[in-house]
Amino acid sequence: MAQSLNPLVAGLRSSAIRDLLALTRAPGVLSLAGGLPAPDTFPADRIAEVAARLLRTDPAAALQYGPTEGEPRLRAWVAAYEGARGGDAVDPERVIMTAGSQQALDLLARTLCTPGDPVVVEEPAYLGGLQALSAAGARLEPVATDADGLDVGALADRLAGGLRPVAVYTVATFQNPTGAVLARARREQLAGLARRYGFTVIEDDPYAEIRFGPATTPPVPPVRAFDDGEHVVTLGSFSKTVAPGLRVGWAVLPAALAGPVARLKQAADLQTGSLGQAVVADLVADEAWWAAHLDDVRAGYARRARALVTALAEVFGERLRVGTPRGGMFLWGRFVDGTATAPLLTAAAARGVAFVPGAEFFVGAPDPATLRLSFATLGPDDLAEAARRLGRAHRDLAERSTGQLAGSRSASS
Amino acid sequence: MAQSLNPLVAGLRSSAIRDLLALTRAPGVLSLAGGLPAPDTFPADRIAEVAARLLRTDPAAALQYGPTEGEPRLRAWVAAYEGARGGDAVDPERVIMTAGSQQALDLLARTLCTPGDPVVVEEPAYLGGLQALSAAGARLEPVATDADGLDVGALADRLAGGLRPVAVYTVATFQNPTGAVLARARREQLAGLARRYGFTVIEDDPYAEIRFGPATTPPVPPVRAFDDGEHVVTLGSFSKTVAPGLRVGWAVLPAALAGPVARLKQAADLQTGSLGQAVVADLVADEAWWAAHLDDVRAGYARRARALVTALAEVFGERLRVGTPRGGMFLWGRFVDGTATAPLLTAAAARGVAFVPGAEFFVGAPDPATLRLSFATLGPDDLAEAARRLGRAHRDLAERSTGQLAGSRSASS
Repeated sequence: MAQSLNPLVAGLRSSAIRDLLALTRAPGVLSLAGGLPAPDTFPADRIAEVAARLLRTDPAAALQYGPTEGEPRLRAWVAAYEGARGGDAVDPERVIMTAGSQQALDLLARTLCTPGDPVVVEEPAYLGGLQALSAAGARLEPVATDADGLDVGALADRLAGGLRPVAVYTVATFQNPTGAVLARARREQLAGLARRYGFTVIEDDPYAEIRFGPATTPPVPPVRAFDDGEHVVTLGSFSKTVAPGLRVGWAVLPAALAGPVARLKQAADLQTGSLGQAVVADLVADEAWWAAHLDDVRAGYARRARALVTALAEVFGERLRVGTPRGGMFLWGRFVDGTATAPLLTAAAARGVAFVPGAEFFVGAPDPATLRLSFATLGPDDLAEAARRLGRAHRDLAERSTGQLAGSRSASS
Repeated sequence: MAQSLNPLVAGLRSSAIRDLLALTRAPGVLSLAGGLPAPDTFPADRIAEVAARLLRTDPAAALQYGPTEGEPRLRAWVAAYEGARGGDAVDPERVIMTAGSQQALDLLARTLCTPGDPVVVEEPAYLGGLQALSAAGARLEPVATDADGLDVGALADRLAGGLRPVAVYTVATFQNPTGAVLARARREQLAGLARRYGFTVIEDDPYAEIRFGPATTPPVPPVRAFDDGEHVVTLGSFSKTVAPGLRVGWAVLPAALAGPVARLKQAADLQTGSLGQAVVADLVADEAWWAAHLDDVRAGYARRARALVTALAEVFGERLRVGTPRGGMFLWGRFVDGTATAPLLTAAAARGVAFVPGAEFFVGAPDPATLRLSFATLGPDDLAEAARRLGRAHRDLAERSTGQLAGSRSASS
């Protein structure tokens, strides 16, 4: 006899990006597909040094079970960091450490949603967020985005029209996939709508520190800064600023959610890894080193972003429209010549370059001419070469279309 | 406006053990409560050495994102290990690495259960298992255990009577909390029932290597050894043999479950930590070191178990009945003098010793005279002292009862 599975799990699609990552591990392929952080940003020597010291001086702290909510020093650091940038005083009891921000998303989705509950998502949206919400049975309600992020006016209209979501999921800063930053006025408006209609904003913020503006420009405050402390969850991560392989992220929760999320975390995996948390706690405790490290990381990604934008402009001119990235890891593009990016990917793979067709990020009707290009992984020279290969693939596709067109004409004549 | 939460999550109880752990961190308390592995079994120096080498020679392997299913070398090792002890050939594609076996439990519960589905659990059972199943909405159906583990005959009767569980959850070897080992004939019968009635056996096996018999005695094969490859999942862990703080465990899945579980894992946390997996893969690759290390770990726990059993016999004589542990980390006891262990815990805390009342592990009507004693954490001398303190607490409680009895007599006279 065969078992029947929970239909929510049986119905989960694999992330096209994760599947692509497997394909693009083929030697010689330059990948603009995944969001793999640049390995040269990983402070490997420093991590080795810190890990060796921890394992020598206090092995139990690094290797033993610890509290479900997380390493106390690290929770306190996150509370202070979030409080400083949010302008709100964050009690460490509201912080829970998670296995990357992806786990925080999964725990929040499970805590807030009963199957069938509507959740508003950005269109286009981060795939991992859609997966976690789908696994929890959420009914995804896409709301459009533009250059200033989620169209909060359109959301207000939907709410006025009767939509009653349990949550709104947003990557408000340097969005994945578009790179957009939710405008300050929209953040305030979104927090107000959450209070008025009683939903939770899940603010997924893993790219906050990867900003490219002048150091003197103050970063935009998190959506949580406009909250009453009860309606916004902020998720953060050390995956982009230290290393993803350590799996250390966090959630700042309204007090009423802290208990339920911690109990679910206990059922989910008991706790986040002790060694990873201890290492990160040591890294961030050295304020001068941490500040200098973040500056290096930002400069590295800014250089990569410039290299890709410049190369794409040289290759495609006006045919491919891309924004100017202000931070994060992704460039969102749209072919104004009507090129469909799904067939372009096949041509690109043959030319040794990969990206993600934009359609992957849509819940509703996709724009088939869009694509996401990651500048996070490759170095500047490889990014330029990847752009040139993409140009060749684009020509291949155009020639093939012309050929097919000619073929279909001759067949019909 | 306040948010409403998913009732399954809102209804989760915190593990009394995790809560107790927090209390028993008070200085001077000797804890027999938690299942914290003995820190002297952690190969901290070796881990430091291996981590330093990995971070120097291949930092990306230790710090970058990796495959959702796990580090290929480690999956292959687990497949070979499980295949050797199960006598079945396990394809590495059936192995998925998880954040401890607790996460594997959570993923399995979510994959197999739709809310309301019945799942058979042992009575008494591992609390973390009950939590993961409850979070997935399973309706827990307890079946009794005895000295030979789950009463599979009683299960067969329930099945014949119409019970149709989607899964049976068992810690078949060195059970938590009882320490029992499911008899070989019962394993075979259980696997047969799974085939006949079409349910999945979730065999949670984190203590398999912590066995105390002579090295010449072959270990009992996993339940999976009696399966057709489609009805038993085996969960394993490096938490007891290397260190829990690395959060590295695994599941060996029927082929039909491998895809759905991997997709859910992706939504849950993308992947298990790269550094922890890489370290463990290096440790187990040195076969001679690994074999010697396991021998040391086994000898250490066997010594602890003997120390606790001996001290309890000296203190309580016939009043406390405990079995002879054959492996694992726990001793299950029952006061034949009728002592209720819930009030005993209060008296024990005052005497500086902690344990877990047996009632915590029951789904149905508990036996109030039972308790679980962990010999995993303390050294032999502390275990003996803990037993003496428990004896004092037992006297305190007896005197108090006598006093109350006298008091109530004088009040009624």
